[in-house]
Amino acid sequence: MAKRELEAIVLCSYQAVSYFGGTHIMTQVSLPDRLEFMVQPRESPATMLVCNIETSMVQSQTDIDDIREYVEFVEEPAEALASLLRDLGLGSARVGVELRRLPVAAGDDVRRSLPSVELVGIDNDVEVAQSNKTRDEIKSLEVGAEATLQAVLAAAAAATTETTEVAFCGDVYARLAAAGGVPTFLVFASGERTLQAHAEAVDAPFEPGAIWRIDVGARFDNVINSDIARTGVVGEPTPEQESLLRALRATQDAGYSVIEPGRPACDVFEAVKAEFGRQGLDFWMPHVGHGLGIGLHEAPLLEPANDTPLEVGMVLNVEPMARIYDRKECYHVEDLAEVTEDGFRLLTQPQDSLIRIPTQ
Amino acid sequence: MAKRELEAIVLCSYQAVSYFGGTHIMTQVSLPDRLEFMVQPRESPATMLVCNIETSMVQSQTDIDDIREYVEFVEEPAEALASLLRDLGLGSARVGVELRRLPVAAGDDVRRSLPSVELVGIDNDVEVAQSNKTRDEIKSLEVGAEATLQAVLAAAAAATTETTEVAFCGDVYARLAAAGGVPTFLVFASGERTLQAHAEAVDAPFEPGAIWRIDVGARFDNVINSDIARTGVVGEPTPEQESLLRALRATQDAGYSVIEPGRPACDVFEAVKAEFGRQGLDFWMPHVGHGLGIGLHEAPLLEPANDTPLEVGMVLNVEPMARIYDRKECYHVEDLAEVTEDGFRLLTQPQDSLIRIPTQ
Repeated sequence: MAKRELEAIVLCSYQAVSYFGGTHIMTQVSLPDRLEFMVQPRESPATMLVCNIETSMVQSQTDIDDIREYVEFVEEPAEALASLLRDLGLGSARVGVELRRLPVAAGDDVRRSLPSVELVGIDNDVEVAQSNKTRDEIKSLEVGAEATLQAVLAAAAAATTETTEVAFCGDVYARLAAAGGVPTFLVFASGERTLQAHAEAVDAPFEPGAIWRIDVGARFDNVINSDIARTGVVGEPTPEQESLLRALRATQDAGYSVIEPGRPACDVFEAVKAEFGRQGLDFWMPHVGHGLGIGLHEAPLLEPANDTPLEVGMVLNVEPMARIYDRKECYHVEDLAEVTEDGFRLLTQPQDSLIRIPTQ
Repeated sequence: MAKRELEAIVLCSYQAVSYFGGTHIMTQVSLPDRLEFMVQPRESPATMLVCNIETSMVQSQTDIDDIREYVEFVEEPAEALASLLRDLGLGSARVGVELRRLPVAAGDDVRRSLPSVELVGIDNDVEVAQSNKTRDEIKSLEVGAEATLQAVLAAAAAATTETTEVAFCGDVYARLAAAGGVPTFLVFASGERTLQAHAEAVDAPFEPGAIWRIDVGARFDNVINSDIARTGVVGEPTPEQESLLRALRATQDAGYSVIEPGRPACDVFEAVKAEFGRQGLDFWMPHVGHGLGIGLHEAPLLEPANDTPLEVGMVLNVEPMARIYDRKECYHVEDLAEVTEDGFRLLTQPQDSLIRIPTQ
């Protein structure tokens, strides 16, 4: 705050409020109008401002003593925030805000109520502050990633050509939940639909010979995300299919190989991209991976303009995806690594071959 | 648009883009920085502006011909929107926007790029336009609600006192997925934790005699939400527990009893609130229910200030919740009804007694 000359910061995203407030308010994700705020002045303790429906739960979760509430539909959350800022002596302050998360209507309300307040975007700073994980966070990430991978492998081993895509995904959900995960997203497709970025399962059985891919995540320890992608085949793969998987895996390994403290995040992007060229694969991805934590795409994003230096304690998903248009197939792999003093450590074991769904 | 004197509207929420664009872009929910837009000028066909990662999937989903894309991390989505508005001759137009969904940073970008454009909030109009369901939508809502209810009832019948909360929820997820649902949220708690608004399951077995409650939803037909709440007990209930459930159900019935075309939405709130008083229950809820569709809380919200007249084809969840502080228990029921010419029709059968988890 001192560096940015801010008198306070206001957090409003599920990711940042969970991280800095120690809360887990699931309606921050499902009910976008129900805003929840954490106000951290530069020199005094934090205050939370929450919808009165959530107060008792928030009290049980956070260490913050000063919890205020607004009554939904009686008060506008942003008006309540403006009142709180005034009460805290911040009515004409320079205040850092997550401007990529706060809705325009709320921002306009605050600016109207407090014409001398200055709202300064701090999204990047907030994200960078979360990118270095504690050992406990890395442990949760590792447990979640491994449980998610095992759910996928076990569901594939249990499937047959009679299994529908929908039933396969149901089995993955059940295994995730049994492992203590709360499913958050599941991309699944087979055959030509693999070419769609984020397709969902359909109620049709697997076709022998078809490539399928899954990209799935769940929350573990309430708030820590997993995010794994794997590619498989129904029955035995053709040599060309296995060779495409190996080529894609080479691009993923190329990404990991440049991970070390001090190197800019964009180097991982460039390494993956260069290996796509060497492997004769079309490269089209705007990013090749991302940090992971309470957010699904956290800093550092592995994209060409990101010169953030990698640091020990960051965790990175490297997730190249190859679209093979003439075969109408898309291959996708995604594994998590942490940045270590020496380079990196994989938190899941990348796949060496296509996952088989037994045909007999 | 004519009434509001708008030359175009810009949609950006998952709910509205899905509804009006016919799409299902799941990253609109999981990746808040990846903005997707639909621009509908008053006199000409609509244009979609999407992240290039999603283009092929969007093409397969929407009937809109003019699909443009921005390259993530190379272009700011809001700058791309400003360029598109300029291309469409809307660079200094009065444009309706979902200002409760568009982030401040994006709104500021558009206003900076197009200083003469006027952004007008249309969130309420957009929501009201979605509140009258087609027969197909009501059918999807009914199928989803019933499947969700059956998943809960079957999981309870299969549980024992050895079952942990986490395992119980895992079973619900599996049954939802097997029925074609994609789980979206699951509130579960037993005992004292039922008092928390949105608690999640813990890895501990059920205590005999404990009240438990579940509030769960999934997506059916890609985009249509279910949202059901039920209250149960481990073993046999005490007479007081059953009596509390009946009292709560009376408040829910009181809400349904006033549903008819032409009555304002707030009448349902007042009817539920009055019955809480007659039943001797503390009333504390800021709303008692909501519309349901692609959004989880859709118009009309059943809250005291909402004078929107109910119309045939609206669907309403009525979901009273009673917190019994001296017993450290919370009871919650939620069922979906459609507004009909004659009044209402329930899409699920409300519970008559507490759901038992067998103790032997």
